[in-house]
Amino acid sequence: MHVALDTMGSDQGPAELVSGALMALRESTVQITLVGDEQAIYAALGNSYPKESINVVATSQVVEMDDSPTLVVRRKKDSSMLRAFELHKKGEVDAVVSAGNSGAVMAAAIKHLGRLKSIQRPAIATVYPTLKGPVVMLDVGANVDCRPKHLYQFGVMATAFSQSMFAIAEPRVGLLSIGAEGSKGNALVKKTYELLEASKLNFIGNVEGGDTFKGDVDVIVCDGFVGNVCLKISEGLAEAVTVMLREEISKTFTAKMGYLLAREAFKNFKKRVDYAEYGGAPLLGLDGTGIICHGRSNSIAIKNAILVADGLAGNKVNDHILALLAQDGDLEQSAKGQKKDE
Amino acid sequence: MHVALDTMGSDQGPAELVSGALMALRESTVQITLVGDEQAIYAALGNSYPKESINVVATSQVVEMDDSPTLVVRRKKDSSMLRAFELHKKGEVDAVVSAGNSGAVMAAAIKHLGRLKSIQRPAIATVYPTLKGPVVMLDVGANVDCRPKHLYQFGVMATAFSQSMFAIAEPRVGLLSIGAEGSKGNALVKKTYELLEASKLNFIGNVEGGDTFKGDVDVIVCDGFVGNVCLKISEGLAEAVTVMLREEISKTFTAKMGYLLAREAFKNFKKRVDYAEYGGAPLLGLDGTGIICHGRSNSIAIKNAILVADGLAGNKVNDHILALLAQDGDLEQSAKGQKKDE
Repeated sequence: MHVALDTMGSDQGPAELVSGALMALRESTVQITLVGDEQAIYAALGNSYPKESINVVATSQVVEMDDSPTLVVRRKKDSSMLRAFELHKKGEVDAVVSAGNSGAVMAAAIKHLGRLKSIQRPAIATVYPTLKGPVVMLDVGANVDCRPKHLYQFGVMATAFSQSMFAIAEPRVGLLSIGAEGSKGNALVKKTYELLEASKLNFIGNVEGGDTFKGDVDVIVCDGFVGNVCLKISEGLAEAVTVMLREEISKTFTAKMGYLLAREAFKNFKKRVDYAEYGGAPLLGLDGTGIICHGRSNSIAIKNAILVADGLAGNKVNDHILALLAQDGDLEQSAKGQKKDE
Repeated sequence: MHVALDTMGSDQGPAELVSGALMALRESTVQITLVGDEQAIYAALGNSYPKESINVVATSQVVEMDDSPTLVVRRKKDSSMLRAFELHKKGEVDAVVSAGNSGAVMAAAIKHLGRLKSIQRPAIATVYPTLKGPVVMLDVGANVDCRPKHLYQFGVMATAFSQSMFAIAEPRVGLLSIGAEGSKGNALVKKTYELLEASKLNFIGNVEGGDTFKGDVDVIVCDGFVGNVCLKISEGLAEAVTVMLREEISKTFTAKMGYLLAREAFKNFKKRVDYAEYGGAPLLGLDGTGIICHGRSNSIAIKNAILVADGLAGNKVNDHILALLAQDGDLEQSAKGQKKDE
């Protein structure tokens, strides 16, 4: 597989991203095209990089974090971001990884790749660490006002992702709500419940916010507003907990000593919950493969994102999505009927 | 002030709740009426309780956690929960605290107390600990499908609560969304933004999930679906983090030693994030005062809930709500106009 890495527009600068690319090459047979400021890229590569596995594509524009996605797509055609997706469209690469402005990444992806056949709304997935295995939540920000069919399709896309990436044969799909019974939730969730129940997905019913980290579900379906709030509140709480604990620990000498002794445990804990370990947020539902990384991604996060992109493209997650949709053919039909009635 | 405590229907049993009531008496001049199984209550009181500050009202029925709120209101009229609110209606107490089935508490409160004048939807508040002061989130579960005016009224109610309980003169009100700009969010949030901006509340704009624990906002407004998901995901994450940390710490002897030395810091930390410190979730928008406690509330949580109930009733939070609504009279009018247009 061949992955294009947009080296510009992150908080960390091209050197950190190039370093992540070099790490990925040490762990896989992926080919990488680095897109961005040529001089910065070659400076970061140094002399001893594996030339047979790396291409460089020079671009002149940079997408900034506060650029409007619509304007980026129109006016920054020679940005590293748009060029990376253009390479994908032309078939020169199989996937794109970017740590830039996420709205713009989505817009660039849709412009150059388009939606996967019969997918109405591409969405952004995130992977949470839990007490057991990882759990995939979809959507976490691309679609704020959704209809039941969109949520059903999120369930399909996340199932295919979970199968491809975590080799789970029949991922357990939960619908995020505020009570276990199908009668609990808002209007959107109640209608989605019916669609998921009628589908061939391994739907286990509603799950609550608190179930996210228990590991008893593999896929959590929600609209992009709720998903984004969940993602941000989890990140915020994890940070606040760390700060509060540090404050308490530094209050007494004994506690400080204790912390030094337990430091390794804290490090392992941090690694376990670190977003960087999960390599970014895949865009699902595109006619291609794209991964959005956090703007502050370090080299490890970039390395992992490249490996995920490699895995998604190699495992043909999009073919899985199409196969799952085909399985539910009748459901699609009935969903269309329902739409007409509205 | 005089508070009725529903001693039945919690996970902990009446003795734990009565013990919380006795603790509250040691810290305030509140009067308490204990409602429930007479024998269990007197057994828990023992002989040396302050008889001048405690009444007991015997009831024959118990509301179970899985009872349907509608049926409870119709068929369990002699339950401790309904009788407690009946006492409130008759003016014999000024507030009710219950750790029972929360849907039933809300139904019982609405049946006996009714809504506060011009409040369309009573709601449930929760108080989160943050890196600075506490933050009030409203609604966290009573109303899953809301209109902009409901969310505006949540802002009013939470503002009055924050003023009464935390003595903040002009609580900063944030609207929970997925981006700071007013243009970010779903349809409900965008319309609510306009109402809050036109109001006399101290509206500081949108806040994101990650801002919840920073302490730079005093009130967070959201619909009950999103708020409940936030509450549950925060509780779930805090629990998962604790388990993960304990697992890492018990892996090596050195780390275990370190934990013993830092134990006090962990205890203080736990106290800082413990829901029990914040004494339950107040119901706002009722023509009266009600507090719902977590089913697993210990005596400390019950004590704090009684003190909060005492404070809410004593500070006349409902008068504050009415005054704030009156201030925004024109807004009310324009919101009504908007409603007609829809």
